Amino acid sequence: MTRWPIPAPMMEALDLARKAADSGEVPVGAVVVLRGEIIAGGFNLTRTDCDPTAHAEIVALREAARKLGSERLGECDLFVTLEPCAMCAGAISHARIARLYYGAADPKGGAVEHGARVFDQVQCLHRPDVYSGIGEGEAAKLLRDFFSDRR
Amino acid sequence: MTRWPIPAPMMEALDLARKAADSGEVPVGAVVVLRGEIIAGGFNLTRTDCDPTAHAEIVALREAARKLGSERLGECDLFVTLEPCAMCAGAISHARIARLYYGAADPKGGAVEHGARVFDQVQCLHRPDVYSGIGEGEAAKLLRDFFSDRR
Repeated sequence: MTRWPIPAPMMEALDLARKAADSGEVPVGAVVVLRGEIIAGGFNLTRTDCDPTAHAEIVALREAARKLGSERLGECDLFVTLEPCAMCAGAISHARIARLYYGAADPKGGAVEHGARVFDQVQCLHRPDVYSGIGEGEAAKLLRDFFSDRR
Repeated sequence: MTRWPIPAPMMEALDLARKAADSGEVPVGAVVVLRGEIIAGGFNLTRTDCDPTAHAEIVALREAARKLGSERLGECDLFVTLEPCAMCAGAISHARIARLYYGAADPKGGAVEHGARVFDQVQCLHRPDVYSGIGEGEAAKLLRDFFSDRR
């Protein structure tokens, strides 16, 4: 149960996740925030774009980096509705994201608190501060509804 | 010491790595092969493109998926000069690459035989067959020369 209001960037990420579902994509959304302002956002586009790397986080990180003209986003935070996978956790580290906020944990595919635990490896050159469970009820419900509709 | 001739796709990946160095990018190159034919290739473009995700593997995978019109590359192999990091190993798994051939091992950043060992996690839905040490002498020399020139 969410005890605190969901922060505005996570609300926006949840809206993006809904857009993903409307497009037949797995409902995950992400936004990049710089000094309190959303500068980029994305949702899963793997099927639409024929791009295995087009997870919400990657779409948002690429847009933010392009906008800022830098591969490093050290002053930015990332909000994403689901625990990032190994690919996305690696990208978050490469981008030097300061703080990572995510919604639902993903025991099946996550790589932050599960499995590869990318940020906990000695090879990980940059570890963001990590806050989980932000809007997790809503994020998990979107995923449940999406997959139950398809069964 | 290389005992066998370096396969043609790895020679091409090494050529791409040299192009990366010429552009001031960390010299790593990658190609995607479908039924013996190179259908996509790339090298590190993180600085040039202001894109933290633009590792050689990601560039090559995205191009191959775009060309084939599918996010899944299940009949394709990937040749890359350096052991993939967590981000790239995750992308390789998402793309369903059949066989991964890589050159030099990367104890500092690799996530195949080091650190996150992405393919060994239960969360990893697809594990390619992995062949390492292909052209590793050449691949490692390119990296050594690049970094020694910068010190």
